This record gives sequence, structure tokens and C-alpha cells, in this order.
Amino acid sequence: MTGSRVGIDVGGTKCLAVVLDEAGTIVGEARRPTPRGVDALIGTLVELAREMGVGASLGVGVPGLVTRAGRLLAAPNLLDVGNVEVGQMLSTALAVPVEVDNDATCALVAEWRVGVAAGVDDVVMVTMGTGIGGGIVAGGRLLRGSNGFAGEIGHMVVDPDGPACPCGRRGCWERYASGTGLAALARTAASEGRLRGVVELSGGSVSEIHGELLCSAARDGDVEASAVIDQFGRWVALGLVNLTNALDPAMFVLGGGLAVDADLYLPPIQHWFEALLYSSDVRPHPLVRFASLGELAGAVGAALLVDAHAVP
Amino acid sequence: MTGSRVGIDVGGTKCLAVVLDEAGTIVGEARRPTPRGVDALIGTLVELAREMGVGASLGVGVPGLVTRAGRLLAAPNLLDVGNVEVGQMLSTALAVPVEVDNDATCALVAEWRVGVAAGVDDVVMVTMGTGIGGGIVAGGRLLRGSNGFAGEIGHMVVDPDGPACPCGRRGCWERYASGTGLAALARTAASEGRLRGVVELSGGSVSEIHGELLCSAARDGDVEASAVIDQFGRWVALGLVNLTNALDPAMFVLGGGLAVDADLYLPPIQHWFEALLYSSDVRPHPLVRFASLGELAGAVGAALLVDAHAVP
Repeated sequence: MTGSRVGIDVGGTKCLAVVLDEAGTIVGEARRPTPRGVDALIGTLVELAREMGVGASLGVGVPGLVTRAGRLLAAPNLLDVGNVEVGQMLSTALAVPVEVDNDATCALVAEWRVGVAAGVDDVVMVTMGTGIGGGIVAGGRLLRGSNGFAGEIGHMVVDPDGPACPCGRRGCWERYASGTGLAALARTAASEGRLRGVVELSGGSVSEIHGELLCSAARDGDVEASAVIDQFGRWVALGLVNLTNALDPAMFVLGGGLAVDADLYLPPIQHWFEALLYSSDVRPHPLVRFASLGELAGAVGAALLVDAHAVP
Repeated sequence: MTGSRVGIDVGGTKCLAVVLDEAGTIVGEARRPTPRGVDALIGTLVELAREMGVGASLGVGVPGLVTRAGRLLAAPNLLDVGNVEVGQMLSTALAVPVEVDNDATCALVAEWRVGVAAGVDDVVMVTMGTGIGGGIVAGGRLLRGSNGFAGEIGHMVVDPDGPACPCGRRGCWERYASGTGLAALARTAASEGRLRGVVELSGGSVSEIHGELLCSAARDGDVEASAVIDQFGRWVALGLVNLTNALDPAMFVLGGGLAVDADLYLPPIQHWFEALLYSSDVRPHPLVRFASLGELAGAVGAALLVDAHAVP
């Protein structure tokens, strides 16, 4: 295939597009607000792709369950969008090959093909934001699952008596190990009388406490804030250990909004990972790395989907 | 490769060997007690392989962590055996290609190649016995992991405050969803004054209660016994749902000792699986099947390892 590959990352608030030249270099970038409703969304994607001069292929990352054929089944964070033949509608409109996948899977593809996991054959990506998304590379191939839904690792239950999850169950990993989970751990600590320094930073309001405040306090030497980050690191590590038992990856890539404070999170995650791993002493441990591609990872990975999906 | 393929399943008490002809039919079978110590074990395996007339290749399944190169790192259920170059020692002694893998992975290979999962590209095997073992086929290939340790699904933590596990952590899935877990659920119920009928069957001793008694009582219409089986089914389903979120298989194969009462376990497992699955209403559900090859699965899968490992 010759010509430019376009990738678009559809988020809850904006659509971010990149265009790659044949060598894979980013040669263009654009963004638009994510509109409400199916027709408006498809229209925006078609316009963005044309504006970027789509030539060889289009890849799209969406926050939701996507079938192997590119149908978006459910997308809780997109307004009035659900059960849409995204791939088919776009390939009809643009007359280029179109591949669609989950947004976290796209971030994985980017890190695996041109980021921190380049050259690694067994990789698990964990995107920690409002929730947890994920993607898996096993044996040098993207693991898609029978329907295309593999990698929904945020909804693995780690405590059946834990807090209710919007998915309808209790104690999903993303209740603990996401940005939302970190804020919840901090608020619980504050309401129990710990974290006085952080409560002060938040203007006295426990409900205003969020991860950035906690990290800022920890950087200033607040021991109680560091203790909550340690607790958070334990929950992250628990899920990574579960995934190691199942998949034995060579590398975890942690991405999403929390990556900005990676230096604070990584030591407790590493500590707890070693403490919790089964047969920790007799086996090599997977590397734990933070994502390297930042905000553009999803769009770059979307542009590279055509190749990643083509592997037999 | 021509000639016969031999597979040996090394268990805690016995070694079970089969020989397959070129068409894959079982044409011979033998068993020996599992001896104590490395030299005796290797000696027994060499004798068994020669006795079976090994021609093309030998495959060995062992209960433990096995590297891609066939080194057994740890095997808690084999006496005085650990950190052994099983593959290398056997291929030197026998001068045929030798492949070694975890015993549950061998059972998976058998069910996937010639059993209930034949032709299915995304399969997760769960062997429920004293503990839980497992194996994964994804995208039509055996998922081995970076070291060869993939599929240790029994040690995925489902309740960090749960009962202590010999692995050093708490609340591993196998504390609940194995034969040991079923007996523990029954004993807890009995010690709380439920399960009077089963306690009577066990001669009044709560510590003597085991899964077979429970199933026998449930078959005779004991409602309290059925309630414990329902509780057990919920724990099994919880783990299957977690694995579905991560891997999106088309089929689960449940094996191990509990398979004999599959008809009792399957309805509650199916019920709870549907209740617990994320986005259960918008997605196809994986099939849940019990293993079809019985006691010989491990040895047959071991004989087929050479092919399963050869896939690039």
C-alpha cells in the first residue's frame, strides 16, 4: 500500500487525528470536538480523514467494545452513539481500507510498534485514566479475542465485596487502580482523619481531593500522601500480578493520565509487584514502563491498526 | 517427522504415558509410580519412552513452572524435584526432539487438537482439581508467554482479604473454584449449621466433608447442598468472567477431577456467568464445556506438544 495512513483517536470530548507518511513519521495533526450522535460523529471522522489527505488507509480508535468487523457495540462515554457500523460506514464514504478498534488497543499498538515496547513480543498495556483500558500482545501478535473484545482488563474483579462499578459488578480493578480509584483512596483516607495536609490544599473539602493534589503533597514530603500512593501502588501491582500469572508478559506499559506522575507511582508499584508475584524468586520479572508517546499514542496506533490487524 | 510420538503426563503419584501413531490414534498406554528425586524421575521417563517405542518425538507434561526451553523451575507436588533441565536431559538420553510444558497446558493442547475444543481458535482451559491450572489458545496459537509460564490462572487474586494460599498471597481464585475450594465452602457452611444432611453422610465430622459427598446429597434433593454448589458456581463464574474480559475466548474447557459431576456444576456456572459478565446483553458469550478426554488428556496433549510449540 502506498500513500498516507491516517489515524483518528475518538475521545469523549475531542477527536485527534494524525497522518503518517510511508516511513511512519507523523506529518500532520488535527483535532475537532467530538459531536453528539452517530451521523455527526461519522461526518466529523470523514471530514478529518479527507482534511488529512487519507491515501492508503484509515484507522480509528473508539472508547468501547468494537467487533473484529469494526462495529462499535457500546460506548458509554460517547453521547448518543452505540451499535454503529463505524468501519463499514467510513470505508463506504472514503473508499479506503478502514480498521477500527478499542482506544486502549490503539495506544498499545503505538507503543508496541514505535514506542517503549518496540521489539517486545509479549506486552500488556494498561491505560489508567477515569477507568482502566488495556490491550495485549502475545507471541508477537495483537491478541484480539474471538469477537475482538480482548483487553478489557479494567473489569477484572479483584474484590467481590468492593465498591459498585458502573458495569454492574463490584470491586472491578478499575475501582482501585485508575485515576478515579486513586481519588477514592485519598478521599477515604481524608474522611478517616488522615491526609490533613492534602485536605488543606483542597480548601478543606474532602470531595475536591484528586490525584494531582496528592502527588503535589507527596512531592513536598507529606508522609500521609505518600502512604496513599503506596496503597494505590499495591492495587495496581495486584492487577499486574494477576495478568502476569495469566499471560507472562515481558513488559507492562502503563499509560493514561496518571503517566505524568510516573516517577511517584513506579517505586511502590515495583515494590508490591515483587512482594505479590507467585514464585517471585525463581522467575524473571516483567519490566514495568510508562507509555512514551503521550497524547498522540491513540491516533498513531489507530494509523498502524491496518498492519497490526493484518497479521494472520 | 515419521514414527510414533510419545507423551508422558507426570503427576504427583503416577506417570502416565501414551503413544500415538502417525494418524494421532492412541496405540499404547503405560503407567508407573512417580519416583522421588530428579535422577529417578528422569530414569523412569526414559524407560517409559523406550518401552513405548518412541520414534518421532517425546512430549512431557509436568505440574509446575516450565520455561520455553524445557527447564522445570518449581514443582511443589513432586518430591525432591525442582530446577531441572528436563527437556535437555531427556533429549540427550533418547536422541529425539523433546518438548516439555505445564500439565494443564498439555491438557489444553489435547482438548484443542483432538477434543471438545477442536477447531476453536480462542480457548481457555481451566483444570479444577486440588488447585486450578490453565492454558490459553489465542488466535489459533498456543499462548506461551515470554518465559513459557502463561496460563497460571489459579493464582489470580479474586479477594485480597480471602484465605491464605500456599503461594504466599490471599484469596487466589483456586482457594474458591477448585476441589479444595468446594470442600472449604462446604465445611464453612457445615460449621455454620447448614448442610446437616451432608454432615450426617460424613459420619458427623465437618472436616471429612468433600465435594463428592456434597454432590451425592445434591443429587438426592438436599437443598442446602445445592445452595453450596450454587455458591461454588458463582466463584467459578467470577474467574471465567475475569478471563473473558481479558481474553474474549470463544470457549472455556473445564477439566480436572470436578468434571465427573459436570452436570451439577454447569447450570450454576452458566447462570452466574451471565449475571456477572460486563455488557452481557450486547456480546456473544463464550461456550462453557467440560473436558472430553478424561484421564489421558495430559499425556495425549504432551504427545502433541511438538506440533503446538512449533507454530511460529
